[in-house]
Amino acid sequence: MAQKDDTLKKIISHSKEYGFIFPSSEIYDGLSATYDYGQNGVELKNNIKEYWWKAMVQMHENIVGLDSAIFMHPTTWKASGHVDAFNDPMIDNKDSKKRYRADVLVEEHIEKIRGKIQKEVKKAAKKFGGSFEEAMFIKTNPRVLKYQDQIKSIEERLKKLLTEEDLKGVKQLIEELGIADPVSGSKNWTDVRQFNLMFATELGSLADGANKVYLRPETAQGIFVNFLNVQKTGRKKLPFGIAQIGKAFRNEIIARQFIFRMREFEQMEMQFFVKPGSELEWYDYWKNLRINWHKALGFNEDHYRFHDHIKLAHYANAAADIEYDYPMGFKELEGIHSRTDFDLKAHEEHSGKKLQFFDPEENKSYIPYVIETSIGLDRMFLAVLTEAYEEEKLEDGSERTVMRIPSFLAPVKAAVMPLTKKDGLPEKAREIINQLKFDFNCEYDEKDSIGKRYRRQDAVGTPYCVTVDHQTLEDNSVTIRERDTMKQDRVSIENIEQILIQKTSLKNALKQISA
Amino acid sequence: MAQKDDTLKKIISHSKEYGFIFPSSEIYDGLSATYDYGQNGVELKNNIKEYWWKAMVQMHENIVGLDSAIFMHPTTWKASGHVDAFNDPMIDNKDSKKRYRADVLVEEHIEKIRGKIQKEVKKAAKKFGGSFEEAMFIKTNPRVLKYQDQIKSIEERLKKLLTEEDLKGVKQLIEELGIADPVSGSKNWTDVRQFNLMFATELGSLADGANKVYLRPETAQGIFVNFLNVQKTGRKKLPFGIAQIGKAFRNEIIARQFIFRMREFEQMEMQFFVKPGSELEWYDYWKNLRINWHKALGFNEDHYRFHDHIKLAHYANAAADIEYDYPMGFKELEGIHSRTDFDLKAHEEHSGKKLQFFDPEENKSYIPYVIETSIGLDRMFLAVLTEAYEEEKLEDGSERTVMRIPSFLAPVKAAVMPLTKKDGLPEKAREIINQLKFDFNCEYDEKDSIGKRYRRQDAVGTPYCVTVDHQTLEDNSVTIRERDTMKQDRVSIENIEQILIQKTSLKNALKQISA
Repeated sequence: MAQKDDTLKKIISHSKEYGFIFPSSEIYDGLSATYDYGQNGVELKNNIKEYWWKAMVQMHENIVGLDSAIFMHPTTWKASGHVDAFNDPMIDNKDSKKRYRADVLVEEHIEKIRGKIQKEVKKAAKKFGGSFEEAMFIKTNPRVLKYQDQIKSIEERLKKLLTEEDLKGVKQLIEELGIADPVSGSKNWTDVRQFNLMFATELGSLADGANKVYLRPETAQGIFVNFLNVQKTGRKKLPFGIAQIGKAFRNEIIARQFIFRMREFEQMEMQFFVKPGSELEWYDYWKNLRINWHKALGFNEDHYRFHDHIKLAHYANAAADIEYDYPMGFKELEGIHSRTDFDLKAHEEHSGKKLQFFDPEENKSYIPYVIETSIGLDRMFLAVLTEAYEEEKLEDGSERTVMRIPSFLAPVKAAVMPLTKKDGLPEKAREIINQLKFDFNCEYDEKDSIGKRYRRQDAVGTPYCVTVDHQTLEDNSVTIRERDTMKQDRVSIENIEQILIQKTSLKNALKQISA
Repeated sequence: MAQKDDTLKKIISHSKEYGFIFPSSEIYDGLSATYDYGQNGVELKNNIKEYWWKAMVQMHENIVGLDSAIFMHPTTWKASGHVDAFNDPMIDNKDSKKRYRADVLVEEHIEKIRGKIQKEVKKAAKKFGGSFEEAMFIKTNPRVLKYQDQIKSIEERLKKLLTEEDLKGVKQLIEELGIADPVSGSKNWTDVRQFNLMFATELGSLADGANKVYLRPETAQGIFVNFLNVQKTGRKKLPFGIAQIGKAFRNEIIARQFIFRMREFEQMEMQFFVKPGSELEWYDYWKNLRINWHKALGFNEDHYRFHDHIKLAHYANAAADIEYDYPMGFKELEGIHSRTDFDLKAHEEHSGKKLQFFDPEENKSYIPYVIETSIGLDRMFLAVLTEAYEEEKLEDGSERTVMRIPSFLAPVKAAVMPLTKKDGLPEKAREIINQLKFDFNCEYDEKDSIGKRYRRQDAVGTPYCVTVDHQTLEDNSVTIRERDTMKQDRVSIENIEQILIQKTSLKNALKQISA
């Protein structure tokens, strides 16, 4: 656990040092839980988007795209249930004026009890070593047993209170447990209230009270309200899908874990409209297709797993997460949900407009069912960083930090370097860039020793370094160094373009997932 | 003028019918001045983005990208001047409760006087025909002269009042002119007030009054606050640029003209950091490069012009717009501004952090000067639609509506069609798509007669239609029909991929602008 925590810290620091992710508004000491993507981050992010978009839209005859606005008519969020039910239970400390999620305060209290169990475990380990006696001691230690009972009882009580939305009960629990404000130590709490997670703002056009609108908390509803527009103008038959990439906003009180949970984030969602009754077949189809898409990146397959939801949301009749093994443990990366006809039906009711598909085979109209695949772009980004980051011990005893980003996602495909700054080598290197720059991102790099430059490109994740040396001037050949193996091949300049396209193109990656 | 108004209406209606742009939240009767990009719109928009991004970042050794968050630290907007000075003068009608821009009310009043002049012109034209007498009559008509004097006097007074921010004077002018609420006819006005155009919302983490944050009104400041982060982690020397594409938000009271002025819009901005003193040279360089980028689309060059600013904003020492000839007339498409060191200096002052570049040649640090190129993505989109839209009379007397979108920007590159739905032709067509879909967007189309299908693809702007007929089964050849000429060539299936890549690739378009 300590090691994994370190990993996240290392990734955060590496991301800043190499232009992947900067804290937002850093010169003003940052804006909490907001981040900016730097010069390498934006390229990696765009490449992930393109990989998803093309795999979804370009590769599927029956999926098209959409780009709906962040601002939507407020009734949208009444229909979707967000105005009434998209809440977290909040509590304020009257002394510190700090606001907390009431359930998180209780969970942190539970963590403290877990910490006490760990203490007992360490004590036993010291006494008995990693032995059978140690295990038995822990299992029978009255303190441990008491702590475990406490945890179980608190967890059950909290779950019941939240399910019943018994906010008074939650406050009582906090007081009974003697939970204090982690900042001030004060136990002077307000009542627990529901706090809506949508950001509101005012669209000014009326003098007395402008129109209250929300920043969308999810991109999905933009697809649902446009369902008929796309179906009719695109002359689509069921089953068909609409894909969208865009920003969404949630006023999380506890936003943390780097870019995993931000108040402003980006989603890549696809809603697949199917005939009622066929939805569970399609649900299985998309579960399978989506996990294969992730695995096609070539990362460790053990780092992905399904988590099937036992308790379903009110709109779903089946749901699963694809979880990735982040430095914080397995967490949701993508959700696949069978949303039934919940959303379209709700929009029919609230808008008074029919949102039905006329099925020519059955000669009748009905509301389609929907399978949703919804992935957090920033979470995908963090998964790529996590998987790619490696501190590698080399044979000569030295170390390097290398980002093993799949080459078609890498921010820079090739760094072109003159061995020295003279003898016409820089000019030759630029000639090569002028040939390659129409195909992909290149970087010209002439500063520092060649070894240092290779390390720097390793740290950014550049899959290939092309080095121009004195032999180049004689026989028009260069070396191509591969990031992962560090092997160098000498090739003729006229072949570089084709070699690098072959090795780094998205086209080849798409061919692989469809193979 | 009437004809041009019609053009905009036709484009709006065509955009909806063919899945380019839908009114946002249409089932809820729309959200004013907000639009969604449909299945073809999103592809065109993404292609424009990619064209700009690659031309900026991939083609320039010294320009890198950035993707900063929409939420920024509120002091950012204090430093940039937006909190204090990003205002419009507003006035409310007490009876109708409608809110108006005070200056626009006066301008509309002026338009009415212009209408009266037009009446006199029509009268004279009726009397004298298009003759010398008519011209003289208008020039000497006392009513026309009076109207012209009125216009001049009102315009001068309004300009002076706005410059001096004399809001009381603006109200007095409205009352003197007897301007009534266009909706209700009431003259019962409130005072004129400044109305800040930034959208505000609250970032919840404090109990007593959450943090007020703004939706960014421009993307530029995200670049300025990250200037040192990018410069240092990217080891950049002057001159260098940072490019960014992203959403911005302005609470315009009068948002209109389709996607030309929206409350939520997208910018493509590049800030180029240069040595103080060299800025005007770089300003000329970028003016030239940017207009050539637009002209490389192959549209009518007369539809682009420069508008040099005579009166400069407080931060600029030179500024020009690239204007495009929209259906509403010439309007700003892109701005090129020499912003001096205004922004970086302001952020230094408000943050207390140095934002300087250490110049190794001069061995000293200084704040760079900045040239900005800022283009409205939605405005670019509208320019492409305007230029591409054509109702063409054909030789046989029939008509077609064709979108002459440059092929590398077109939403769909090739529609693949079986001539009939039987004899294995659909299967053959899908085989071809399965070969082409790794390269670009294809559409399979088998519904209706082949003529109707060609027209539909013309209306979407698909540059090539590939038709599979019975001869295909014999000799493995298909016809390729070109959108603009409507000419058909018969080619072997094995050559299609290379032919279409050659004719539609962004790579070739990039080669052209750099040639």
